Amino acid sequence: MLDNAKLGRIVAMMKEKEVPQLIITDPLSIFYLLGKRFAPGERMLALYVNVDGDKQLVINKLFPQTEDLGVPITYFDDIEDGVEVLCQYIQKDKVVGVDKNWPAHFLLRLQELKGGSAWVNGSLIVDKVRQIKDENEHRIMKESALKIDQVMDKLIPWVVKGLTEIELEEKVKELCAEVGFEGLSFDPITGYGKSGADPHHVTDETKGKHGDSVVLDIGGMWKGYASDITRTVFIGEISDRQREIYNIVLEANKRGIAAAKPGNKMSDVDKAARDYITEMGYGEYFTHRTGHSIGLEDHEAGDVSAVNDEIIQPGQCFSVEPGIYLYDEGIGVRIEDILYITEDGCDVLNEYPKDEPIVVPDGE
Amino acid sequence: MLDNAKLGRIVAMMKEKEVPQLIITDPLSIFYLLGKRFAPGERMLALYVNVDGDKQLVINKLFPQTEDLGVPITYFDDIEDGVEVLCQYIQKDKVVGVDKNWPAHFLLRLQELKGGSAWVNGSLIVDKVRQIKDENEHRIMKESALKIDQVMDKLIPWVVKGLTEIELEEKVKELCAEVGFEGLSFDPITGYGKSGADPHHVTDETKGKHGDSVVLDIGGMWKGYASDITRTVFIGEISDRQREIYNIVLEANKRGIAAAKPGNKMSDVDKAARDYITEMGYGEYFTHRTGHSIGLEDHEAGDVSAVNDEIIQPGQCFSVEPGIYLYDEGIGVRIEDILYITEDGCDVLNEYPKDEPIVVPDGE
Repeated sequence: MLDNAKLGRIVAMMKEKEVPQLIITDPLSIFYLLGKRFAPGERMLALYVNVDGDKQLVINKLFPQTEDLGVPITYFDDIEDGVEVLCQYIQKDKVVGVDKNWPAHFLLRLQELKGGSAWVNGSLIVDKVRQIKDENEHRIMKESALKIDQVMDKLIPWVVKGLTEIELEEKVKELCAEVGFEGLSFDPITGYGKSGADPHHVTDETKGKHGDSVVLDIGGMWKGYASDITRTVFIGEISDRQREIYNIVLEANKRGIAAAKPGNKMSDVDKAARDYITEMGYGEYFTHRTGHSIGLEDHEAGDVSAVNDEIIQPGQCFSVEPGIYLYDEGIGVRIEDILYITEDGCDVLNEYPKDEPIVVPDGE
Repeated sequence: MLDNAKLGRIVAMMKEKEVPQLIITDPLSIFYLLGKRFAPGERMLALYVNVDGDKQLVINKLFPQTEDLGVPITYFDDIEDGVEVLCQYIQKDKVVGVDKNWPAHFLLRLQELKGGSAWVNGSLIVDKVRQIKDENEHRIMKESALKIDQVMDKLIPWVVKGLTEIELEEKVKELCAEVGFEGLSFDPITGYGKSGADPHHVTDETKGKHGDSVVLDIGGMWKGYASDITRTVFIGEISDRQREIYNIVLEANKRGIAAAKPGNKMSDVDKAARDYITEMGYGEYFTHRTGHSIGLEDHEAGDVSAVNDEIIQPGQCFSVEPGIYLYDEGIGVRIEDILYITEDGCDVLNEYPKDEPIVVPDGE
């Protein structure tokens, strides 16, 4: 059923950005507004909205709707041209925003039919609104975070000598199903030693061995919302060197979190985490952005990086996940939590402990 | 490494369709031409080609290439605008073809930069060339078909009373891994009784029961190429009614195959299968097209349907898969094979038997 509060925020943003009409086609954005999931495959699916309050869902007959979605529906079939059907609702003399990932052939057809006076990336509007979670979304994000904490807790005893990365990845999938996740929010990372020290490593047959640092980066989907957590554990023992690196990353994670509050910029969070790592002499080994926005997708618009100068707003959810990767020494450490921005700071959604490095028994 | 024969066929088709330059961005089409797989995610990836013989691969620095791909490469990084980098190779005063599924925001940016005099759907060219398999592709498609036959053979003994559709689907995944498939080519269908009689059914917890018809529609990926087969089996016994329906579908499958030869139209294959089913009184229960092209994807451009009047060419691969779905009686039957079109007819790539309906023991 159409969420009028969310639609109202989109219309307000349309006015601000001077885009009088939008064709929303990302099934996740449609789920966001209508609470209804569609998997149209290659078939056109579009929710048209404009600043005058007109709304129209245009959808293939293969997906007949029995419930009231709160918007009028127009159906087309496989021998009709979906874009032409959509076109009758478009104001021809005005700019149209289209979703960033709409397949080009639909846009080309829309342009051919002169459906609009110009075409712009409308995701800049929808994604901006999706960034700010309402109370219901906050609650689900918290549930999702606690579930992935549970998976982390069940997973760590499986980190032993002899189990391959692929086997450990399979274990993540099993445990995610066990706690009731609808699926994974991304391919898990279960990197031993050098594998964890290479952020582009692809999970393989490497086996855990005594003394390895192990990067566990996992996430699941709950009621349509993603979770994401990283912890780094150690097999059998932790060396002084590993402890030193762990503590630097931990402090960077905490400084990033401390900087995550309304009024600060997204880049301030990156800077807080990065400056500390740089100060400790490892700046060049922190080779990625500090974090990413999260919600209906694991990675949403809104980086926590040096180039994102947008002001942080209450309701945003994003990760803070600094890391240090010493490939030659085979040491990789990353610590990641998901935050929810409040009026004056943030809630850390993940509650899984991080203050002391976890050393697991060698096992066999 | 660039396959010059395939590129030559694309350039010939570009000339025929009067599209002087192409931006190829579908990773499968790039794999088709370069034999190299890319998973660029949200980052831009483009292979530019024009009828003058210019070629340029434009790709993010995150994917450094060590081997010679037979085309010059230009790299860009995350703070550069990939489309702007690509734009320098484009002839601004000429039409550009772009891939049908290129995300709209890339196309909008290209248009903003005036990269071309007009933009058209270039997939009409690339997909047409991809339809015609060369000898190497023919060999791989045959291997892929024989592997899925093997999976079908191993799967059928698992069709018993009491096993749920989801459990049976899991078994398909296991068996596909066991025979060495790289993955599935689509979500398997394992529909008992009424489930198999509903072509839009989503696999659920339904258990097989005595007397069920069971639709098994499965496929795997082998060396990048898809296989696809459907057989219908019966649990415990087959009723006269079920046998009647089975034999009609079988004859329709054979008539479709007999019509699949160069010179005929794709629609002739649909007509041959459909007319027989209609003649036998079940036309309204054959509710989908007769088949689809197949290759690097399970469903490729080129339907076997009433509206596709294209002339069949040697080298095409497509399915013939008529079905009859009597939902009220809980009887669903579909029989599918993949064909390779030869100079004067076709090879049926799948060899799994179909002439006699298979009745499996009840089991438990």
